[in-house]
Amino acid sequence: MKGALFDGDLRPLAVLHEPTPAAAGPQAVVDTAAQALLRLTGQAADHGLRVHGAGVVVPGIVREDAQLAVRSVNLGWRDLPLAEVLSERTGLPVVLGHDVRAGGLAESVLGAARGVRNVLFVAIGTGIAGALVCDGEPTQGQGYAGELGHLVVDPGGARCACGGRGCLETVASASAVAAAFTARTGRSVEGAAGVAALVARGDADAVSVWQRAVDALATALATTVTLFGCERVVLGGGLAEAGELLLGPVRQRLDEKLTFQRRPSVVAAELGDRAGCLGAGLLARRAAARAPGTFATAEGVRR
Amino acid sequence: MKGALFDGDLRPLAVLHEPTPAAAGPQAVVDTAAQALLRLTGQAADHGLRVHGAGVVVPGIVREDAQLAVRSVNLGWRDLPLAEVLSERTGLPVVLGHDVRAGGLAESVLGAARGVRNVLFVAIGTGIAGALVCDGEPTQGQGYAGELGHLVVDPGGARCACGGRGCLETVASASAVAAAFTARTGRSVEGAAGVAALVARGDADAVSVWQRAVDALATALATTVTLFGCERVVLGGGLAEAGELLLGPVRQRLDEKLTFQRRPSVVAAELGDRAGCLGAGLLARRAAARAPGTFATAEGVRR
Repeated sequence: MKGALFDGDLRPLAVLHEPTPAAAGPQAVVDTAAQALLRLTGQAADHGLRVHGAGVVVPGIVREDAQLAVRSVNLGWRDLPLAEVLSERTGLPVVLGHDVRAGGLAESVLGAARGVRNVLFVAIGTGIAGALVCDGEPTQGQGYAGELGHLVVDPGGARCACGGRGCLETVASASAVAAAFTARTGRSVEGAAGVAALVARGDADAVSVWQRAVDALATALATTVTLFGCERVVLGGGLAEAGELLLGPVRQRLDEKLTFQRRPSVVAAELGDRAGCLGAGLLARRAAARAPGTFATAEGVRR
Repeated sequence: MKGALFDGDLRPLAVLHEPTPAAAGPQAVVDTAAQALLRLTGQAADHGLRVHGAGVVVPGIVREDAQLAVRSVNLGWRDLPLAEVLSERTGLPVVLGHDVRAGGLAESVLGAARGVRNVLFVAIGTGIAGALVCDGEPTQGQGYAGELGHLVVDPGGARCACGGRGCLETVASASAVAAAFTARTGRSVEGAAGVAALVARGDADAVSVWQRAVDALATALATTVTLFGCERVVLGGGLAEAGELLLGPVRQRLDEKLTFQRRPSVVAAELGDRAGCLGAGLLARRAAARAPGTFATAEGVRR
């Protein structure tokens, strides 16, 4: 769990990191989040500052329109009105968002897609998730949008945790890349970064695994661009730390797959693991601007 | 070319149909559109009514944000500021939109997806185009969004007019279905409706061609639902006139392809060939409400 206290220009005045007590159940997670908000509020007071409100972003299915944490397999909650709960616990106006959509918003306002109105942000780590910023706003689909990791790139391929087969995640997540290398060679490797290092040295097995991931990513990006007309694709998460080793071949394969569609630029994320916190800060700043002290969301008013 | 004079509740007071003089070049098309607007304005005067403004929707690449008709292969224009041109010719405030996005807007406000916030509208005719209504607004992608017909459903498959291979259009458009039946059997057929009639009678070749189109459509819908979290899919255009013969198997195949994703309802369009006109009317009504007499668009003001 990460938190930050921002000033009005989203400069961090304080940050915190806490282990998320996921194994202790959803109530423990909510307690820890409430304590983190109170600790940051206390730090604001130490600076002689008042907190105008809090943005909280979480994984899973999040409905921004209803301010509901609908479901998180890892954190165990269902249909939790998390903004309301945390507001009651802290006395702060709280706005709830989704971690990856908030990260995409941060990259599109402050990061690698500043000033770009149609952006696909892809976080490639253990899984793969996307955030689609359309005409300047992250598409929510009432919580269901952006599941790029579950586009089928290999029909009939490997079984995915979602129950499907051949999802992008099974081929191109950081975990899948490392696992594919080990399955192919019997050699253990330090995650996707280890595979990337071998690719840079020309290891034929690593290159083959990498190319398959690149091709699958390019297929999913071409699909998304065809539907959304994205101007820019921002790749983030662990796999994207490989930099041009990933971006170069993804650009080339994507270019080969597109015909009349808009050709987006493909760039690395700039905000790294600060994207989520900055996105939460942006949500809070926007909510405070709309309704100081009360946080009116698009569909309703929350304290 | 179709036109209608609407009252404030979008009831048609007059309609017109004109051949589009596409072969005579873009200037002739613009002239005919301007004359159509003036004719409808005259009919309003005959009713003792004043026209508050006009919505004009056209095919191809249309940038609503810049009010530009960027490109239409059939109509021949490039980067034409069509709203401004028609406004100068008619003295009316004019707002420009895209034909399929306007149709999707109409279905989502007045038709088969009334009250639904996340809608995919698919027009299946000679080609296939989509309109994605996200959180209540058609996604524009600065003119490039919604190219459902060019999702690749059969990698390495038949050559598409776009230059790609295996696009949805090459398998599941009304034209493609009829052509596939003739290629398979050597028998001529009255378009996709003729194939549908044979399917209803159990003709094995027709059933095979139909199933391939259904499967391709379901693949493209599953992809779109995964990215957008659509609540409802509205199928329109010539192929959708087959009704449950199309909708039933599409629902079943889509259901088989989805795992954790939202499961949208799949329904037939309600507005038929009135969707475009009604969508244009909605655009005009919204523009007039925002800026009576001047039509301020999101990004600028047009006379």
